[in-house]
Amino acid sequence: MNKFEETTISTEKIFEGRVIKVQVDEVTLPNGKKSTRELVKHPGAVAIIPITSEGKIVMVEQFRKPLERSIIEIPAGKLEPGEKPAFTATRELEEETGYGASHLEKIYSFATSPGFSDEVIHLFVARDLFKIAQPASLDEDEFVEIMEVSIEEAERLVEEERIFDAKTILAIMWAKNNLLK
Amino acid sequence: MNKFEETTISTEKIFEGRVIKVQVDEVTLPNGKKSTRELVKHPGAVAIIPITSEGKIVMVEQFRKPLERSIIEIPAGKLEPGEKPAFTATRELEEETGYGASHLEKIYSFATSPGFSDEVIHLFVARDLFKIAQPASLDEDEFVEIMEVSIEEAERLVEEERIFDAKTILAIMWAKNNLLK
Repeated sequence: MNKFEETTISTEKIFEGRVIKVQVDEVTLPNGKKSTRELVKHPGAVAIIPITSEGKIVMVEQFRKPLERSIIEIPAGKLEPGEKPAFTATRELEEETGYGASHLEKIYSFATSPGFSDEVIHLFVARDLFKIAQPASLDEDEFVEIMEVSIEEAERLVEEERIFDAKTILAIMWAKNNLLK
Repeated sequence: MNKFEETTISTEKIFEGRVIKVQVDEVTLPNGKKSTRELVKHPGAVAIIPITSEGKIVMVEQFRKPLERSIIEIPAGKLEPGEKPAFTATRELEEETGYGASHLEKIYSFATSPGFSDEVIHLFVARDLFKIAQPASLDEDEFVEIMEVSIEEAERLVEEERIFDAKTILAIMWAKNNLLK
């Protein structure tokens, strides 16, 4: 598993924020030379594919400051310290959509940007949804609009780049391959 | 497209590295309150799904310092300033695999981590591959091992988490849906 391993010589801490930490590691390369690696540490996140009884996917539109525009995504959120991903998934589904799920199943985990970040997303599918009467509210700096989207509509939104992130495109393909057959 | 827009009040530059830049923006939220957003600026990247005449995908195994292990990915690389993505894709395919492609086609672009980074990957499929006699060499801090993987083998590698990044999982699903039918 550790072909071409790079060993750390030293770590320079650059930034410690609310969400990310940034550091620069000096490393020894497999050929013995030295280089540096810029690393963004992230607590990890969950994303959920909530499937309605009509076979639609519940999505949220929100403004994403790094892209300077709003995009449509599956519900997602960061892990709090010590939190199990399935717990985070249940919480984020409730906060962002007002739904609970009788069945929550892990699909897989993946790194989003392995070249510079350790962020891992744990992807779940949520089925047998039910409306929660008084759902927990969003974080105070979160604003989202909820929508229910068929697979065909989702594919059109990908073409229009209103859906524009890897986890959501991946989720749509997964749903198409696993739910429509 | 700009529902819930957050307007920038000020930008604090934190770090300017070889690959990423980090800044903290103070923003006004849609409800008039203020918050901060931690942003990782990235030049953008390409990723390529190189398909052999036998229907296999050419992949590369490399050590990823943020994950502290090696993973198997489709070929990818950063955009140089002013570079068109199709040019970068041709260069990275040659450098990482030694292949040229008679047909290179853009599939789509997507953000990898829209919550904290502006990184966008432009995904291409490369067909009608040919071996380049003396391919351009890798960057001096890059070490990769090339392999050709069938869709079935790729799905097994995803289960084993030796393939572990969003773009490669997405690429495998795309190849399965578009090449095997």
